[in-house]
This record gives sequence, C-alpha cells and structure tokens, in this order.
Amino acid sequence: MIAYLCQKKLSMKQKTPKESLTILTDLVLPGETNYLDNLFGGELLARMDRACSIAARRHSRRIVVTASVNNVVFTKSVPVGSVVTIEAKVSRAFKSSMEIYVDVWIEDRQSGLKTKVNEGIYTFVAVDETGKPVEIAQIKPETELEKERFNGALRRKQLSLVLAGKMKPNEASELRALFIE
Amino acid sequence: MIAYLCQKKLSMKQKTPKESLTILTDLVLPGETNYLDNLFGGELLARMDRACSIAARRHSRRIVVTASVNNVVFTKSVPVGSVVTIEAKVSRAFKSSMEIYVDVWIEDRQSGLKTKVNEGIYTFVAVDETGKPVEIAQIKPETELEKERFNGALRRKQLSLVLAGKMKPNEASELRALFIE
Amino acid sequence: MIAYLCQKKLSMKQKTPKESLTILTDLVLPGETNYLDNLFGGELLARMDRACSIAARRHSRRIVVTASVNNVVFTKSVPVGSVVTIEAKVSRAFKSSMEIYVDVWIEDRQSGLKTKVNEGIYTFVAVDETGKPVEIAQIKPETELEKERFNGALRRKQLSLVLAGKMKPNEASELRALFIE
Amino acid sequence: MIAYLCQKKLSMKQKTPKESLTILTDLVLPGETNYLDNLFGGELLARMDRACSIAARRHSRRIVVTASVNNVVFTKSVPVGSVVTIEAKVSRAFKSSMEIYVDVWIEDRQSGLKTKVNEGIYTFVAVDETGKPVEIAQIKPETELEKERFNGALRRKQLSLVLAGKMKPNEASELRALFIE
Amino acid sequence: MIAYLCQKKLSMKQKTPKESLTILTDLVLPGETNYLDNLFGGELLARMDRACSIAARRHSRRIVVTASVNNVVFTKSVPVGSVVTIEAKVSRAFKSSMEIYVDVWIEDRQSGLKTKVNEGIYTFVAVDETGKPVEIAQIKPETELEKERFNGALRRKQLSLVLAGKMKPNEASELRALFIE
Amino acid sequence: MIAYLCQKKLSMKQKTPKESLTILTDLVLPGETNYLDNLFGGELLARMDRACSIAARRHSRRIVVTASVNNVVFTKSVPVGSVVTIEAKVSRAFKSSMEIYVDVWIEDRQSGLKTKVNEGIYTFVAVDETGKPVEIAQIKPETELEKERFNGALRRKQLSLVLAGKMKPNEASELRALFIE
Repeated sequence: MIAYLCQKKLSMKQKTPKESLTILTDLVLPGETNYLDNLFGGELLARMDRACSIAARRHSRRIVVTASVNNVVFTKSVPVGSVVTIEAKVSRAFKSSMEIYVDVWIEDRQSGLKTKVNEGIYTFVAVDETGKPVEIAQIKPETELEKERFNGALRRKQLSLVLAGKMKPNEASELRALFIE
Repeated sequence: MIAYLCQKKLSMKQKTPKESLTILTDLVLPGETNYLDNLFGGELLARMDRACSIAARRHSRRIVVTASVNNVVFTKSVPVGSVVTIEAKVSRAFKSSMEIYVDVWIEDRQSGLKTKVNEGIYTFVAVDETGKPVEIAQIKPETELEKERFNGALRRKQLSLVLAGKMKPNEASELRALFIE
Repeated sequence: MIAYLCQKKLSMKQKTPKESLTILTDLVLPGETNYLDNLFGGELLARMDRACSIAARRHSRRIVVTASVNNVVFTKSVPVGSVVTIEAKVSRAFKSSMEIYVDVWIEDRQSGLKTKVNEGIYTFVAVDETGKPVEIAQIKPETELEKERFNGALRRKQLSLVLAGKMKPNEASELRALFIE
Repeated sequence: MIAYLCQKKLSMKQKTPKESLTILTDLVLPGETNYLDNLFGGELLARMDRACSIAARRHSRRIVVTASVNNVVFTKSVPVGSVVTIEAKVSRAFKSSMEIYVDVWIEDRQSGLKTKVNEGIYTFVAVDETGKPVEIAQIKPETELEKERFNGALRRKQLSLVLAGKMKPNEASELRALFIE
Repeated sequence: MIAYLCQKKLSMKQKTPKESLTILTDLVLPGETNYLDNLFGGELLARMDRACSIAARRHSRRIVVTASVNNVVFTKSVPVGSVVTIEAKVSRAFKSSMEIYVDVWIEDRQSGLKTKVNEGIYTFVAVDETGKPVEIAQIKPETELEKERFNGALRRKQLSLVLAGKMKPNEASELRALFIE
Repeated sequence: MIAYLCQKKLSMKQKTPKESLTILTDLVLPGETNYLDNLFGGELLARMDRACSIAARRHSRRIVVTASVNNVVFTKSVPVGSVVTIEAKVSRAFKSSMEIYVDVWIEDRQSGLKTKVNEGIYTFVAVDETGKPVEIAQIKPETELEKERFNGALRRKQLSLVLAGKMKPNEASELRALFIE
C-alpha cells in the first residue's frame, strides 16, 4: 500500500516542459505536396500530431490519445525538399489531459537560416490499457515563453469548453477577464 | 472591360454550402493505427484536410491552401477496419478565405448505425497561380444548421485574430457580446 | 429458434442499390502518378476496390472479400491534382456474392464540369468471421440504369463462369441469347 | 528515310512473351491487410498493374498506360507476411495495345511450396510523349500455355468490344463460335 | 528421436545460391524521389532489404531478421520512372546467419540496355518464433561469381567482428593475409 | 574575384560535428513491422538515410546524395509502438564526401530508459545542381567520441577503397597498421 502511494507520488511529481521536448526533423518528400509543390497542410498536421503524442508520452509515461487540435496556424508554405523541424513540448498538464505546444521551422539550404512556418496547440489525454483516463504529473515552466504558454493554457481550456457548450461563458473567469477589461 | 466585370460578377455570386459538399468515405487501414488499434489522430486530421480542401476548391473554383485548423475535437476513437465518412461544407466565405465545417462519422458493420466521432473547423485561402489571395463567392446558408454555423463563423474569425494578437479584444464586438451578457 | 428465423428473414429482405451507395472523393497526390503525371491505373484500381468493399459491406452488413474484378475500362487519364469522385453501388446480389458497379469522375477546377474517366465491375463475397460464405439480402433496383445493370449482372456472371471453365457455353442461356439472335 | 524504315522494321519485328517476362517478388506488409489479416484485393491489383506495365514497356520499349483490366479472379486469400510472386508476360499484341497475362503465387515458408492465388488479364496501350498511340512489335508465342493464351486473346478483345457496345455480337466471329457450336 | 534427427539432417543439407534467388522488379514512383528527381538512397535500401529477407527466408525456411548491412555502394543515380531490378542470393551461410549479395540494375526504356547501379551485402539471422537463432543449411556455390563471393564472405565476417571489437586483428587470419602479403 | 575567394574561404572553414546534428524522433507505425511485430530493418535504413542526408546538408549547405552505407549493425529489435530517436552527425569530411555517424535509440514508455538499438555509417557526396561533386568544409571534432570517430574515418575510407578494388592493400597505410602491429 505504501509502495503504491510512493509510486503514485513519484509519478505525480512536477516535470519541466524541457523533459518532454521532442524534435522531429525530416524532409518534405515529393509525394506529400500539393498543386503548388508545397507540403500539404494535412500531412504537416499528421507529423505534428506524432511529435505531440511523443511529447505527451514522455511527460506522462502513459498511452496517450489525441483529444483535440485547438489552433494551428499556417503562416508560410513549405516547399518540396525542405528540411522541416518540429519541436513539441508539454505546456501545461491538467488532471489527465495535457496541452502541447508545437513549433515548426524550415531552414534555407544555402544560408542555414531558420524560418518559423507554423505553430499549433494539441491536447492529449493519458489513458490506461483499457482506454480510461489516468492522473498525470504537473508542469513547472522554466523559461519566459514556457511561463507565458502555461498561463494561457487555462484560458484556452475554458475557451474550448465554452465553444463546446460544456461551460457557460460567464463561468469562464479567465476568459471573461480578457474581454471585459 | 465589361466582359471582365461580368466575369467578376459571375464568380462573386452567392453559393449554397450544399454546392461545396464533399464526401470522403474510406476504410481505416491497419497501417494508420496506434497502440490501441485505433486510427491515429494525425491521420484523421490529414484526411479531413483533404476533404476540406476539395470543398474549398468546389466553392471557389481556385487553388486553395490551408490557412488554419481552428478546432478539431476527437469525441470517440475510430477502431481499425471502421468505415469512416467525412463530410465537409463551406460554412462561410470572407474576402478570400473560407471557413469549412467538417463532420466525421463511423458506422457499425452489423447494425449500420452511424456515430459521430469528430468534428472540426478548417480555414482555407483561395489563391492564384502565383500564390496571391483572390476574391471568392459568398455563402448563402439554407438549413438551420448551416445558418447557425454561418453566424458563428464571424465570432470564430474574431477569436482567431484576438488569439493571434491581430485584433484587440475590445474591438471583437461579436465575441465580446458572448462574455459580457 | 424463432428468433433466429426472424433475424434471418430480416437480413434476407430486399434492399435498394441506393442503400449501399458509397462516395469516395479524394485528391490525386503526386506520389501516385506515372511518367506522364497521370494517376497510375493500379492506384485507381485500389481506390475503387476500397469503395466497392464498403458498398458490399453496407449491403450485406458482413465481412466482405474481393472475389474478382470483371471489367474495368480506363477511358480518360487522370492528371495529378485532380479531384476524383468514385461512386460504388451494389447492382445485384446472388446467394453470397454481390456485383458492384463503380463509376469514376474527375471535375474541372475552374468550370466544375464533371467528366467520366472510368467504370468498373467488382464482385465481392460476404463471409463470416471464419471466412465461410454467408447468405445475403437481394437487390431491388429502382432507376432505369440500376435495372439495366441488374439485368446484365446474370449475363456477366455466366460469362465469368464460362471463361473460368466452370460452366459450359451452351448452358449459359442468358449469354447465348446475345450471340444467337 | 531508309534509316527510318529500318528502325521501324526493327521495332516491328516479332518478340516472344519471354522477352517481356517481369517478376515482382515482395512481402505482404501489415499496412496492406484487411479485417481478416489478408492482403487487400485492391493492393494486389495495384502491384499486378505495376508488374504488367513493366512487361508492356519491355515488349514495346514505349511509354505505356493501362487501358483495361479484363478479368482478375481471387482464388485464395494472401495472409500478412506472405511472400508474393507476380509474373507478368505479354500474351498478344495488337496494333498499339497489348494483352498481359499475370499470375500470382504465394509460397509456404516452411515447405517452400508454391500456391496459385490469383490470375488476371490487363490491357495496356503504347503511346508517345504526347500520349498518342504508337505501333508496336507482334508476339510469337513459344510454349503451349503461351499459344493457348495468344489464341484466346482475340476472343477476349471481341468480348470487350461487345460488352462496351463497340462491336455487334454477330460480328464477333471468334466469340460467337464459342456459344453456337 | 530418429525422426527428429532425420528432419534436422534434411534441413541441414547444402543448398545452392540459385535456390534462394529473389527478383524484385518494380517502378520508381514520383513519391520516392529526391531534389534531383532520383530515387532516394533510403528507399532503395528498404527495397533491397525486403528482397534480401525473402532470399534469406527461401534459403533457411525460417523467420529471418536483418543483422547488419555491411556495404552498399551507390554507383549511379536512379531517375524517377526507371524500372529497377533487384536480385538477391544467399552467398554464404554460417551457423545461423547468412550473407546475402544483392545486385541492382536499371534498364533503358528505348534500348532495353541494363546498367548496374548498386550492389550491397546484407546479413540476416534465422530465428524461431521466440526470436532465438536456429541452425541453417550451408551453401554450395556453383558459378565462378558465386564461388568468389562465397570465399570473400569469411573475410568480410572477420572484418565485421574486428570493426565491432569482437575479434582481435591478429586472430583474423583471412583478413590479415590481405594486408601482410 | 576577391568576393569569390572570400566566399570560398568562408564555405571552406571548419565546422564542428555538433553543427550538423540532426534528431529525428518518430513512432514505429504498425504498417512498418515484420512477422514478429518489430520494425523492418529496411524501414529503419530509410529513416537513417533521411536523417544522415539532412546532417550532410547542414554541414555542406549543398545538395547531397547517398554514396554508400558502410556498416549498419542491428543490435536489438524495435517493437511496434516504440519511440525511435535517430541522431546523425558528420564525423569527418573529405574533399566532397562526408562520413555520417548515426545512432539509434528506443525508450521505454514507463521508465523512460533509453536503449541503443542500432548504429550505422553512411557516406554522402555534396553536388551542385548538375550533380557534379563540390568542395566542402572540413570537420573539427570536439568531444572524445567525435575525435575517435574522426580518426577511424580515414581507416574506413581506405577499407572501402580496398574492398572496391580502387586501392591496393599495401597502400592502405592506416588500415595496414591495424593488422601488422
């Protein structure tokens, strides 16, 4: 019994976003491009989902499943032959769900310069072998950017609940503040 | 010159969501599944993106590129071997961008019963051969659901702009109303 | 026992081709094209097979396996980037096998005009979990085209049997009539 | 001018089916299987199409495109992990089209025994860089099986034309004989 | 017991390289090419591995797993649309491991001329259902090339062991002779 | 002229292995596995090749093509669902070719423990747009491991040349020393 509690405590300890950092660097193959010879949005969404699922798994040490994709913005197109680097980190953990922030860059072959092309927010849920949600460790942000994303995560969660009709707008305190002030 | 104006008028005429309806029915293959033998979230995102891009193309008759994925919620898992039906329709058009609503169902093999597993909102932009945005036809919603989605689209657009820091919360009139009342 | 008979009756009731209608609209990706930048015949055959298998499953509510591809004619080439719409419907059911008719169109991006590029006939067999053939519902055609295809199906079945050496030509009454008159 | 004629003569010389023999031995990967863990019919059709296209190219030394799939019969299922051997040979050449016969075997891992699982008939057309049909060499069958398939090819071609409504049944001399005698 | 010994004897009998010959002829699809429109090295490595695994299986009649890739040299690039022929044969068998030699050709569409583009050496291990190595038949080379490859195999095996630090250079008799004389 | 020389000098400056470090973390999907539910050797070879090509490109800022795979050893199998991390770094540069060392790990989901499963050595050549080899920057190793791999690279290059018959064994000074002492 004590062993069990210890193990639970252990798994519930805080972790930093850096501990879940996942880097997926890969090429854009010709079979993944659209009419303008740029990477298909959908293919990039799939790669980002795989990187996020690994970050979620590294944070929770559990089986994880995609719960939602909250916001992905495609700023620049990604031409065929590009080297695409996807970096995913857990930005905040709730009871059994995690928000993962994912940033995407391409780099110029000749200059080596990196350009941000895309960023997105995915939510994953940690589950056991039967698919039931399980409790996970919390996040302790370190850098300024990590803290900013950590703080925004609650607001985004409320927004999701409001849009899904599972929370009344006037109960979404974090979110309301944004519009009233 | 007159011919040009006529052509422009023509392409700018209103269209119904139904005219862009795109149905993609396909199987879940074993190579697209995760540890629990369910379809990967990322694979579904890619299929939804393809269906939405076709709907956007049918509405605009132009080359279209993914601009953002605003909200995709995974309600139920999709087991290997499922028949997955994706239905995408343009819910509202702005100057050169379109919001596409996409609904996803699976059906039980024995009973034929359909279950909603997923819904999402994608934004596409219509561009010319050089990648420059072009003006597109507007949407005239017909059914109750289409009207509701049409009305919500402006709110969601403002939300995106606010979250991206491109609009001040107090200028987002549609959105503000939601939280103040 | 009675329950069993009822269930059997139920599953044996007639169905219309429309009840099995399956629509698979998808893009032609650059990775699926040949030397002339057109969709590979083999890739289209595979997509058609998947659409037919879903139609067969919707009709029979059973596991289904491809038995034969009777005739697929490629009339027009399908350029990369095309939107391809595949429509499959069960045209006739026999004891445990079904003939599925599949029609393939592409549409012009600018005009929206649809062109028929391909049509094919697939045969599927409904089986149980052990792979043994099971009895299925019969087809009641509604439209003129459905009736025409329903009537032709027996002739095509005899043709298959004759070509496979499983029926003597002079026993193929339906087929013989075609050549004698 | 003479050089041109010589070249033409040269390319028009007869070839044996053996000269176009194409062998494609490959594994059945888990991502290509259906609910019963057998290779999807559609995946096999695509592999067969690729093997046939190579045989057609070897015979004609031209760009070739799939014209039709006349008859593919799936006799046995192909379990995941199988070694599948596809053998394609041109059985008869017409003006610019070729009939290719394709046989498919799997082999038992432990005993090495080969089992025929499938056979099919594909028709390809040889075209130039603009997609226009070009004249090709004729076939000189050598073995008994090659002769039998060569002779049956004309009957099958007439059958295709009759079924497509491009030839009247009473003009299909080869075919008629089959049913009248 | 005697039956067991007989069976063991049987499986341990010598086999020729020809008995394991595996031919994989396939096209280079546009989705497998790099920036210069040539087949990716990695894609070719994967195809070669599949061909070698089938050759290893045909020789051993066992489950086989890749142990190492000893030397693959890319002499010529392979343009998109090429017909690639891979030929793999077991060159020598050790206790439970096999060296497989694999040669790769492309052929010119118009002239039919074959060009060697690549050759490689793979090592596979035969295992039982639990993944434990099992004893396999030995190789009896027939042609001059087969004998040369058979003789070189021991030298290459010693080289691998030396490079991996599992054999001292002065114990590698075969290899040493090469450098001392 | 001076500008040209400066640019040349610049591109010829030494770089550290770290500057080319490429990390490709991804999942093992069910479609990439063999009979024992482990990742196919060939699939891993292809992923490693992609990671190495990016490292080679980062070092040279040029188009790069695979020249050879010198030695890849598969120590442990990689089960389906594993998180695989591939790390590639240029270990030494010659005139226009580079040796890339690639290490592969999997990590245990529950404990997070990393296990080395594989390591390999690839050689890439930097080329211009016409495919002609171009001169590249040299490598300045920093860590102990980088120095060890840098020093071993010349020996491995000589070995390749000897095995390919392009260098006489007695001219391979680095290699000879290994066996004589």
